[in-house]
Parts: sequence; C-alpha cells; structure tokens
Amino acid sequence: MARSLGRICKGFQCLGSVSSIQTQLRQPSTSVSVRGTTFVRTMVQALPSLFSSKPRDFSLPNSSWGSEMMRLYEHYNGQCKAETEGGEKQEGPWRRLPSYNRLLKYATGGVYLSKIIQSKARLFTRNIRDPGAAFEYVLFVNSEEQKCVCVFQAGHLLEGPPGHVHGGAIATMIDTVTGTHATILSGPVMTANLNINYRSPIPLGSTVLLESFLDKKEGRKTFISCKVTSSDGSKLHTETTALFLSINFSHLLLGE
Amino acid sequence: MARSLGRICKGFQCLGSVSSIQTQLRQPSTSVSVRGTTFVRTMVQALPSLFSSKPRDFSLPNSSWGSEMMRLYEHYNGQCKAETEGGEKQEGPWRRLPSYNRLLKYATGGVYLSKIIQSKARLFTRNIRDPGAAFEYVLFVNSEEQKCVCVFQAGHLLEGPPGHVHGGAIATMIDTVTGTHATILSGPVMTANLNINYRSPIPLGSTVLLESFLDKKEGRKTFISCKVTSSDGSKLHTETTALFLSINFSHLLLGE
Repeated sequence: MARSLGRICKGFQCLGSVSSIQTQLRQPSTSVSVRGTTFVRTMVQALPSLFSSKPRDFSLPNSSWGSEMMRLYEHYNGQCKAETEGGEKQEGPWRRLPSYNRLLKYATGGVYLSKIIQSKARLFTRNIRDPGAAFEYVLFVNSEEQKCVCVFQAGHLLEGPPGHVHGGAIATMIDTVTGTHATILSGPVMTANLNINYRSPIPLGSTVLLESFLDKKEGRKTFISCKVTSSDGSKLHTETTALFLSINFSHLLLGE
Repeated sequence: MARSLGRICKGFQCLGSVSSIQTQLRQPSTSVSVRGTTFVRTMVQALPSLFSSKPRDFSLPNSSWGSEMMRLYEHYNGQCKAETEGGEKQEGPWRRLPSYNRLLKYATGGVYLSKIIQSKARLFTRNIRDPGAAFEYVLFVNSEEQKCVCVFQAGHLLEGPPGHVHGGAIATMIDTVTGTHATILSGPVMTANLNINYRSPIPLGSTVLLESFLDKKEGRKTFISCKVTSSDGSKLHTETTALFLSINFSHLLLGE
C-alpha cells in the first residue's frame, strides 16, 4: 500500500516535470524524447482546470545571481529553442526547464490528490524564498545528446563544513538533476540508487556545474551518471552513478 | 589548496562534534572512544574564549514533536548516562548528542576562522527555525556497541514526491548521522562515498529511525552502514554504505 502510494507520488512528480517541460515549450508536438509522453500529454490536456494560477518559475535570474551564475545561464539560454516576438523560431539544441516550489500547490482536484496534498508542503530545494540564501539553480536539457546541465549557486544556508556546502545539499542537487533527466528519458521513474563519490568540497556562495549523462537503458532501468565540477570544469567536486526504475503510469493513478 | 581548505573545514566540523559531545557529558574523562580526542580536548581547553555565548541545542523536544518522536526520544534518553540533582550518576549505554545551527557562529577568533566564517551561514539541517517545518532530529550514540541511532521527524518543507520526503533530504540525514558516527569512531574524517539504496518512500510528517553501524576500519578508512526504517522497524526505507577518510588534525590547523 505504501509502495503503491509511493508510486503514485513519484508519478505525480514525473507528471510535474514532463508537463512543465511541455508548458515551457508551448508546442503540441515536442522533439523531447520521453517514453509515455503521449499519456502524460493526454492527462495534462484532460485536466486543464487543475491548474488554477500560474506558479512562479524559480529558474529565472534574480538579484542574487552572481556573475558566474549569469554567465553560464546566458551561455545555455542563448542556445535554447525559442519563439521571437516576430513569431520566428530560434533554433538551438538546449531547452531551459522551469522550476516551481510545488506543482500540486496549484492543483484543485484529482482522485488521489486530496489524499496526499499537504497545503503547507514545499519542494525541498525551493522551500526558502529569500533569493540567494539556499538553492539557486537552473536546468537545461539537450535531447539530441541525451544530456542535462544544471547551473547551481550554493547559498549560505546550505552549510556543512564551515564555509562549504553540506554533503547532503550536494546529494540533493544530484538527485534533482539525475531524477529530472531520467524522467525526461524514460517517463515516470523511481530513484533506486545514488552512489556518490565526494572528491573536493564546494565553497558556499560559489557556482558549480552539474552535468548528467545517460549511460544505458535496460528494460525498466535507466542508468545515469553525473559529475559536479567548478564552473570552468577545472575542479571535480563529485562523481555519481544513479539508477532509476520505470513505473507504469496507469498504476500510479489506480494505486495498484 | 582547496583540498587543504576542505580538510580545515572538515576538521572544524569534527572539532564541533567531538567538543559538543564532551560539553554534553561534562566529564573531564569520557568513555567515548575517539581517536585524537586528547588533542581536541586540548584545543577546547586552550581556547575557552572562543565560545562567547551558549548556543541553542536543537536536539531537545519542542512543541512540534509528535507522539512517536517523543516516545522514541524518551526511550533512548531514559537509557542515557546522566548526573542527578543529588550528584548521583545514572548509568546507561547511550549518550544524547546536542545539535546546533552552527558552531562557528559562537566563535570570535582563531587563525583560520576569520577566513572561513560567513556570519549568515547556517548548518543545512538547522537553517529553519520554525519548529517542525523541516528537520527535527536527535542523535544518540552507544559507544560499547559502536552504534548510533537518530530519531527523525520529517517536516512539510522537505517534500520531494508530493506528500513524501525528498530523496536529497533523506541523503542529508544519512550523511549527518554516518558522518557524526565516523567522527566519534575515528576523529577528524572526510566523507568519501555515500551509496544509498532507496527501498520505499517516507511520508512527510512521519517519524523514522536511522541506525548507523561500524562495519570495519582499515587504516585511514572507516566503513559505516546505515538503514532508515519506520519507527517500529517494520518497513525499510533506505540502506546505505558510507566511507570516511581520516585526516591529520594538525594539518587542518596548518592548512597543509
């Protein structure tokens, strides 16, 4: 039962990620390679009234972003597909992914939603509104290369060793990036394993890069690797392998 | 250089943990088995003016603690060594470890402190003061059995999958518990690896147990395993192996 509930929840997380990507792209047909996307899209189209207001996208620049954060954001954002004001399509290999403090905050219905909603609940990485105090990050996905990058600026509330980022905060960003990447690649998934090697500490306030790669897919399993480096790539902070298990989306809704 | 700085920082983290244990025990000679304790104690005794005020101990009960959190706290706390008001010593195999939002907040000097202090920085697991909103936890150590337990109540700001705890928040608690345990067992250490298998999700608001065990020590390496279960032990949430590397404490202070 709890396992089923877990599947339900993970499924809603996936729905959130995938539908967010699609909302961002605003294209009925997307080139993002997602198994099960059709079903997810049907769900999103069938339940438009679920979303009662437009949530804040935390992945856009704010006053706390330092020069390195801005430089890397502009580097990848400049290579994103976009539609200009004149209606022209700008080509590019990358997509920026929006990020919210909770998708379900904006939902008002659903068979299982009422059972699992806690109105005060917030996404762990977006639970502090003070800009720059905690996790400042933005994800980009490159579907052709089956790669994700995340630009991450670590705020002063993420301390572990004095002056440096807590190992758990680093694990949190790794889980976020690889989990999002696995969802894009394989549809609804559950995290099964994170194996993190810590090589060198990350100073508080610094901006680092997380790069996520597809290693292989075998049946229900999606294997992802991820490295965290300094913003110029010269220093390796962590190396990670991650395993995700695909789950049946219809089972999520039925609680089976 | 950054590696050295990391060592310095990890060392101060260890100093914090070990000296906190000693402060808690209020005994000049402790039975806690800590390599390098003598050196740490000398440091603490030599720099009494560093600590200008008594910090808040976050590991004591507050109004947010639910019945299961209180039951487990009392279960272990009742088995702790303590000195009664009459001066009698109450025997017990466990020790409760205090927990602060930052040790260096209360420091006012030191060769390296001024270089690494960021006055607004807070320990990641103690960065929210609203009781019950995030990480509510208390650690106990059993030196004879070389075991630690942590009672953890997961607040609504730790959400990942809707209604459940973020995998990164779970990793954060695992890093905290195993890192503290390794410090007690081996003195100053650095986290080198966390390998986490996620078995079943943890509902927000629930209380779980983290149990940490020494697997073996080989030279500089301390191998710890940790499992997270429901409070009655019937459901397994995660299984983890962790590796920590001992570091030379004198090198920490010299920045070598």
